[in-house]
Amino acid sequence: MSSHAFDQAIALTPVAPNLYKGSTSDAFKNMVGPFGGLTAAILLNAVLQHPERLGDPVSLTVNFAGPVGDGDFEVEATPLRTNRSTQHWLLLQKQNGEVVTSATAFFANRRETLSEQQLAAPQAPAPTSLQRVDLSIRNWFKQYDFRFVRGVPFSRRPEDEPETESLLWVRDYPERALDFASLTALGDVFAPRVFLLRQSFTPSGTVSMTHYFHATGEELLQASGFLLGQARATRLHRNYADQIAHLWSEDGVLLLTSTQSVYFKE
Amino acid sequence: MSSHAFDQAIALTPVAPNLYKGSTSDAFKNMVGPFGGLTAAILLNAVLQHPERLGDPVSLTVNFAGPVGDGDFEVEATPLRTNRSTQHWLLLQKQNGEVVTSATAFFANRRETLSEQQLAAPQAPAPTSLQRVDLSIRNWFKQYDFRFVRGVPFSRRPEDEPETESLLWVRDYPERALDFASLTALGDVFAPRVFLLRQSFTPSGTVSMTHYFHATGEELLQASGFLLGQARATRLHRNYADQIAHLWSEDGVLLLTSTQSVYFKE
Repeated sequence: MSSHAFDQAIALTPVAPNLYKGSTSDAFKNMVGPFGGLTAAILLNAVLQHPERLGDPVSLTVNFAGPVGDGDFEVEATPLRTNRSTQHWLLLQKQNGEVVTSATAFFANRRETLSEQQLAAPQAPAPTSLQRVDLSIRNWFKQYDFRFVRGVPFSRRPEDEPETESLLWVRDYPERALDFASLTALGDVFAPRVFLLRQSFTPSGTVSMTHYFHATGEELLQASGFLLGQARATRLHRNYADQIAHLWSEDGVLLLTSTQSVYFKE
Repeated sequence: MSSHAFDQAIALTPVAPNLYKGSTSDAFKNMVGPFGGLTAAILLNAVLQHPERLGDPVSLTVNFAGPVGDGDFEVEATPLRTNRSTQHWLLLQKQNGEVVTSATAFFANRRETLSEQQLAAPQAPAPTSLQRVDLSIRNWFKQYDFRFVRGVPFSRRPEDEPETESLLWVRDYPERALDFASLTALGDVFAPRVFLLRQSFTPSGTVSMTHYFHATGEELLQASGFLLGQARATRLHRNYADQIAHLWSEDGVLLLTSTQSVYFKE
């Protein structure tokens, strides 16, 4: 196994057909439980290493049902339906017999087709021209190299218009070749958008997240390096906000479209 | 039961704990099987009428795993986890013991909080100033009143730039009060975005769809009438395209954010 903290954190051991065991990792601790992006990567990883897996991930939805406690967990990975070139999965992460995370994933063999990108990467200064932001108040922040262009959480001044957009460069720290698991985690590095409207912390957390993967594994490898990420809410209302995010490679190829529904307390 | 075709089409009969029976409806037939938005509404409806249901839907992800054949089906609706004010569901639609559709749903009690809309409704002429579009080549089209502002499928001329945006008014036909089930179906009325790039039909279909509900049931009732819908792809590549859609009430309140991953053949 790679000695990279991310590979260690997503490692799973098969213990029975469709059943894996893993453990939480201190390196990816968030305020309550692990970084959600890591949990999503762990669930995807169960499919990626499953002997019946067909093709590459196209979509993944992860529902954060309850807090993941420190220590061991199980992942049940069940192929719900396998067609000629597509496959649907159900994934359940459990602790003490209780579901803490549920997910569905769709995998497929992908062929050459019409290819059309309708959303260009926003203009941004080169990542190397920007300072790495020190967000070391949570363990998992230290596993990433964040270089913000705009939209730093809690930076809103009283006179500013409400604006929930963040634009930033991000990559694994230390560097690691991009693959489906790491892209899955990188798609969740954006803070809750409500933090862009606030001057200080209020309780908030993702309840459901959906990733659409636009690239094959070979295309991801070629895109290794910094990714440009943009995230924005379209509405925050009655405890829940949506969030639409995109990740582009450094040369402007859209790799991931992601949406979240995010709880916020007040 | 209401005599409206939509209410008849989403009707389910409880047959055992967590188990419902239903039948496909000719009125909502698509090319292969029923209109996917109707299937999504049926799955949500299983939770809405479940005796253990808590609160209102916040998010719903539906995975179209295989073709739904004409006739009877079962829906298994299982509460995976119930917290104090939130609840996570697993939904499986089966025919002949095989999964044809899977879904997860997140429900919650929603309180007053900060409320901020970050995406204004696009400018559009009043729906009554536009002609109803006759799209009667599929049964389900007849159940909706479509009034396009722009982005009619297959209308691209060879000299046009590639553009996947559609903007249209839509409501149930005949009219029906808006609720979570009808909004769920309305969130899927947009054609595959690849049709905006093409002059003629090519095989295409949704593989996974996620809705985020921004409003409570009372707020939906107040928003009955035409909804303004906008849909756009950000990337189409190797058989799959994403699609981001929004639905606003006639007075500009954002009610639904929806994303899809859509297969296209070539």
